Amino acid sequence: MAEQWARSGLDLHLGIDRARGLRAGLEEALRSAVRDGRLAPGDRLPSSRALAQELGVARGTVTQVYEQLTAEGYLTSRARSGVRIAPRPRPETTVSVPAVSPCWPPADRFDLRSGLPDLSMFPRREWLAATRHVLGSMPNTDLGYGDPAGDPTLRTALADYLGRSRGLRTSPEQIIVCAGYTHALRIICQAVRGTIGFEDPTRQDYPAMAERLGLTVTRLPVDEDGLVVDALTGENAVVVTPAHQFPLGVTLSPQRRRDLLAWACRTDAVIVEDDYDGEFRYDRQPVGALQGLAPERVIYAGTVSKTIAPALRIAWLAVPGHLVPALRAVLRYDEAYVNVIDQQVLAHLIGRGDLDRHLRRCRVRYRQRRDRLGRVVAERLPHARLSGISAGLHAMMHLPGAAEPELLGRLAARGVVTEGISLFYRDARDAPPGLVIGYATPPQHAFEPAIAALMAVCAGDDGAESPVSGRRRGAERSARPGVRRRPR
Amino acid sequence: MAEQWARSGLDLHLGIDRARGLRAGLEEALRSAVRDGRLAPGDRLPSSRALAQELGVARGTVTQVYEQLTAEGYLTSRARSGVRIAPRPRPETTVSVPAVSPCWPPADRFDLRSGLPDLSMFPRREWLAATRHVLGSMPNTDLGYGDPAGDPTLRTALADYLGRSRGLRTSPEQIIVCAGYTHALRIICQAVRGTIGFEDPTRQDYPAMAERLGLTVTRLPVDEDGLVVDALTGENAVVVTPAHQFPLGVTLSPQRRRDLLAWACRTDAVIVEDDYDGEFRYDRQPVGALQGLAPERVIYAGTVSKTIAPALRIAWLAVPGHLVPALRAVLRYDEAYVNVIDQQVLAHLIGRGDLDRHLRRCRVRYRQRRDRLGRVVAERLPHARLSGISAGLHAMMHLPGAAEPELLGRLAARGVVTEGISLFYRDARDAPPGLVIGYATPPQHAFEPAIAALMAVCAGDDGAESPVSGRRRGAERSARPGVRRRPR
Repeated sequence: MAEQWARSGLDLHLGIDRARGLRAGLEEALRSAVRDGRLAPGDRLPSSRALAQELGVARGTVTQVYEQLTAEGYLTSRARSGVRIAPRPRPETTVSVPAVSPCWPPADRFDLRSGLPDLSMFPRREWLAATRHVLGSMPNTDLGYGDPAGDPTLRTALADYLGRSRGLRTSPEQIIVCAGYTHALRIICQAVRGTIGFEDPTRQDYPAMAERLGLTVTRLPVDEDGLVVDALTGENAVVVTPAHQFPLGVTLSPQRRRDLLAWACRTDAVIVEDDYDGEFRYDRQPVGALQGLAPERVIYAGTVSKTIAPALRIAWLAVPGHLVPALRAVLRYDEAYVNVIDQQVLAHLIGRGDLDRHLRRCRVRYRQRRDRLGRVVAERLPHARLSGISAGLHAMMHLPGAAEPELLGRLAARGVVTEGISLFYRDARDAPPGLVIGYATPPQHAFEPAIAALMAVCAGDDGAESPVSGRRRGAERSARPGVRRRPR
Repeated sequence: MAEQWARSGLDLHLGIDRARGLRAGLEEALRSAVRDGRLAPGDRLPSSRALAQELGVARGTVTQVYEQLTAEGYLTSRARSGVRIAPRPRPETTVSVPAVSPCWPPADRFDLRSGLPDLSMFPRREWLAATRHVLGSMPNTDLGYGDPAGDPTLRTALADYLGRSRGLRTSPEQIIVCAGYTHALRIICQAVRGTIGFEDPTRQDYPAMAERLGLTVTRLPVDEDGLVVDALTGENAVVVTPAHQFPLGVTLSPQRRRDLLAWACRTDAVIVEDDYDGEFRYDRQPVGALQGLAPERVIYAGTVSKTIAPALRIAWLAVPGHLVPALRAVLRYDEAYVNVIDQQVLAHLIGRGDLDRHLRRCRVRYRQRRDRLGRVVAERLPHARLSGISAGLHAMMHLPGAAEPELLGRLAARGVVTEGISLFYRDARDAPPGLVIGYATPPQHAFEPAIAALMAVCAGDDGAESPVSGRRRGAERSARPGVRRRPR
């Protein structure tokens, strides 16, 4: 990078980065000078001839730069008064607005929240290579509005991928590409009438959104066999996480699967299968999706938010054929919002096996973390217990007798960000005391320190009183089992 | 590309593309063989040792390939029975579903629909270079869920860009990034209560969406000075296209701008400024946005759909400070759906001046087309008239006496896809007969043939009766002026 100082009538100090090319360098130098106030509105720039001489460049180069910056609104150019810095509109100053919120999650803390993969594993090289491929080969016509249900390339790749990896019985015509699971669920809620059931516990945002969209919401208990099917009444639809209940981490048992399908057939209801982390099972081969057993009863939802990154905003539905028209009707006003380039990039990654390769790398890492967490808890916290199957990105850590709010406060003081189990229950009193540990979330170098900090606080080694002795609500709590067992 | 035929007990014909590397080539060859049915479920593959010998590759390579394809679900591997092709789930066959719809617009026709830029101008090289930059520099934490209102990088770049190019008075904190204008409008409709006004004509989908979201909709006439402000009653919000009314192509006059702002202040209403193509004005410098006059009254909406491509699904709102909390509350359930990588790519293109450079290239091309269209219409269609200012991506072509449906049918027969003016009116009888011509839409090589085909049909040179003599409803129509003039 060569610095050059240009002096003119304006005493114009420009650090020009010639490595980017003279024209680009001069352009950027002028932009910076305007942005940081060194050139103020109304300031007159030297003539293109004068500046060209001073910089020792062709006059045409300066002219091009002035034209470009005039088009960008940085400069004004008038016959008599020459080239000047354009007046800038004053920002609206009558009201104060919240500042742009910081990135989520914050970079400087131990992040053990659930719902995130290790973002340091994002396949940047593969994503860039696939983008190069797609931009080099996609027809111009693909850059228009496209099919609101998603790009045919991706829908074809997904139908194939879901068939072989999750046992789905579907076709490209039944796939709808969405901008994340929340969008997918909102599309469904707009096509369903009446009552929709949600598991309790679950993420509270989902039933809240359904209510906002005019549906009546019921909440259904979960035990160690998954959703309690007997608790279903007249719901028109039910949202369930069969592979790995969130957040309890249990699997819907084979008997419950049969019961649930029988209920849906009997009452003509729709099952929404939220397969948010179905790709990650560490103790044996993943259990196939419920959808494969009854493709005409189940709307299947999957996402890349847990497998690659939430930032991509890509999810999908596999829809029973007879429901395709109803969901397409919703799409007219709530269309698929996913960049077609990104859709074709993902299709390329799936078709080349890059996604599966990435998943294998992730599985190895998350399994090691899950195992490590289990060992550390057994060693350091004799009162605690992990529950849920060896799968996914999170585990439930039961801490009998712990006072959750106080514990979370002490964790936060040590820089550990995590969630209490009660956050996911409609009634916090139904929740067993403890934490949901998103062990996949931290980058590799931060995993051990994060777990160490977590253990120190939970074991009371942080100088505060031990959580187990913090028996504000502990006495009644410790009698409650981690996951409610239904008599059957 | 070297072909190699491997023969084993299975008579395995594999065309291996060694240019991609042996492992990748063998993987892809096996995937293709499964996909196209040459290898059927249950087929047994040779042992890794045997296949390695046959292909003359290291056994480890074959083992890796088998592991990868097992993880992908193509193969199963069991102790006794060796490696076999996995069973495939049968697709749901009980119902028929619509086929994946073709790309919109179809590639093999003359596309003169409005609302699309020339997609062949998409800055592929710049987009790829910016993606490389972003993937090489963005922190991992940016790959999480992020701020629902949009990435701070893009919001900062947009606040700057909109200030200098459109005269907005705003700040990054007031920008909300959306997945296209439809999404932007839906967010607004969920924050507004009561009644919302739309111009008549407009795209019918927008008022239809507002009604669907529970708002009462009024429709307001437009004359050659733009929205008829006197027609406003007690609306809580009004959606207007001041820079270039869609589809009439007129500009909101200075007096009407003042009247509209006075109305909004008096009634405490919100103005939604749809600045869909404000960057494109060919006769003089673009008129600044209405927002710059009253940033506390106007929600400004812009998009890349007309400047770069709809496929990107990126738009933005600049929101009055006091409305930021209400719109953020909506985002909780209807979040910004835009890939953070794409947001940072766009921010990079804006910051480097690539967007403005692209806009200058587009302006030159579209202006030439607009001028050319004007000349051709004057030469070939003495009865016709173009209306609207020299701006944007479309023009209104008035064809007094033409029977629109019949004309559109004859155009379609010649491969010309376009829209009648009546499509945009609530009551088709209010529309002057004629067409909305999206002259920016075709790629450069197809522009002249598209215009020639359009002229041939409109002039009656296609062998059908002349549209002007097709007076089914022509007599009453020809008396109606192109744009209704209000007495004032």
